Amino acid sequence: MKSEKISEAVVRRLPVYLRYLNELHAREVPTVSSQELGQKLDLNPAQIRKDLAYFGDFGRKGIGYDVSYLIEKIRHILKLDQQINVALIGAGNLGHALSNYNAYLQETMKIVAVFDSYEPKVGTKINTLTVKPMSDLAETIQAKGIRVGIITVPNTEAQHVADQLVEAGIEAILNFAPIILRTPPHVRVHTADFTTDLLSLAYYLEDGKELEVNEQLSE
Amino acid sequence: MKSEKISEAVVRRLPVYLRYLNELHAREVPTVSSQELGQKLDLNPAQIRKDLAYFGDFGRKGIGYDVSYLIEKIRHILKLDQQINVALIGAGNLGHALSNYNAYLQETMKIVAVFDSYEPKVGTKINTLTVKPMSDLAETIQAKGIRVGIITVPNTEAQHVADQLVEAGIEAILNFAPIILRTPPHVRVHTADFTTDLLSLAYYLEDGKELEVNEQLSE
Repeated sequence: MKSEKISEAVVRRLPVYLRYLNELHAREVPTVSSQELGQKLDLNPAQIRKDLAYFGDFGRKGIGYDVSYLIEKIRHILKLDQQINVALIGAGNLGHALSNYNAYLQETMKIVAVFDSYEPKVGTKINTLTVKPMSDLAETIQAKGIRVGIITVPNTEAQHVADQLVEAGIEAILNFAPIILRTPPHVRVHTADFTTDLLSLAYYLEDGKELEVNEQLSE
Repeated sequence: MKSEKISEAVVRRLPVYLRYLNELHAREVPTVSSQELGQKLDLNPAQIRKDLAYFGDFGRKGIGYDVSYLIEKIRHILKLDQQINVALIGAGNLGHALSNYNAYLQETMKIVAVFDSYEPKVGTKINTLTVKPMSDLAETIQAKGIRVGIITVPNTEAQHVADQLVEAGIEAILNFAPIILRTPPHVRVHTADFTTDLLSLAYYLEDGKELEVNEQLSE
């Protein structure tokens, strides 16, 4: 491995590669070229080769990448070769929707506990999990070795929930509330903001401002 | 404006700027510096100045950017100065959750119709909208001038729904199914994949591999 420091852009692309590689693996496809990856994922093949070269030179010219080996390698780099336990805070529609991804995420990250501050929700089931009260948060995070929290509460509650997660020793947060959370520097926050994906689509409407492939990768 | 071609990375950052600028505007803050924007949004101030310089030189040294003017300008660039109508396909938990964002998205993009192929869902209400059958899709898209479709159906149905949207003349799709859709080149697809945000968090756990700010922006 070249270095401890992999740029955020690369780290964000690795799960995208992984998703498609898992699809190939399920279809028992043994190898894949950077051309095919590029075409399927709408990325420049040269960029893909550059990304994967970070982790050693395991593509073979004319044959491509070994799918199983690449999956193993990417999972190792992303530290997904052991299960990471996740808590979901907010048992509303979005929380329900996300809990359905557990099957898809199996053996990588897993939602193992769900919390809600709204009393009538406590004790109800989300798939196989029983919704717990916020007063159980710290204890459950300790007991289950939960390292990541997903916040799907209303905007007005999101910062308070983040504070409780930080206090309980969580290491990273995926935030679905469209606000900017304040957290200490050792807690990494990613914001899953679908409005950004949606609003940026508008730019491409109507006069068909298509980007050149190399333009897309210039920043 | 410098050019018709703005890189995808910049187009993706503009809604992020817009969100924070709207927050400032609501708090009646008149101006903001690239330093403050950088700090709040976890971006390099130099990158922000570069992004905004695409659209003309409207930051003033020592004063910063005029919040209202910048909002207006970004909305214009993203073509959000008029409402864009959106259809939501899939009235499940995720569809319900997304429809709640209509208030947040007001005057930009608006979900004006919801569809579901599951008969018992048809005729039920999601907020103020009545769920319509898929057989009404083409006609409603025409009648309401809908240009964007959001897909929140199960993976197995997503491609079929995309085909129907394309046939009905939709111009862009936001896809929440974790699969790669095949669409003709004139239809832009963004994938809102929370699993990418979640899985990439794993990389930052434990040994605290923190990135340098300039590393984050290097690609």
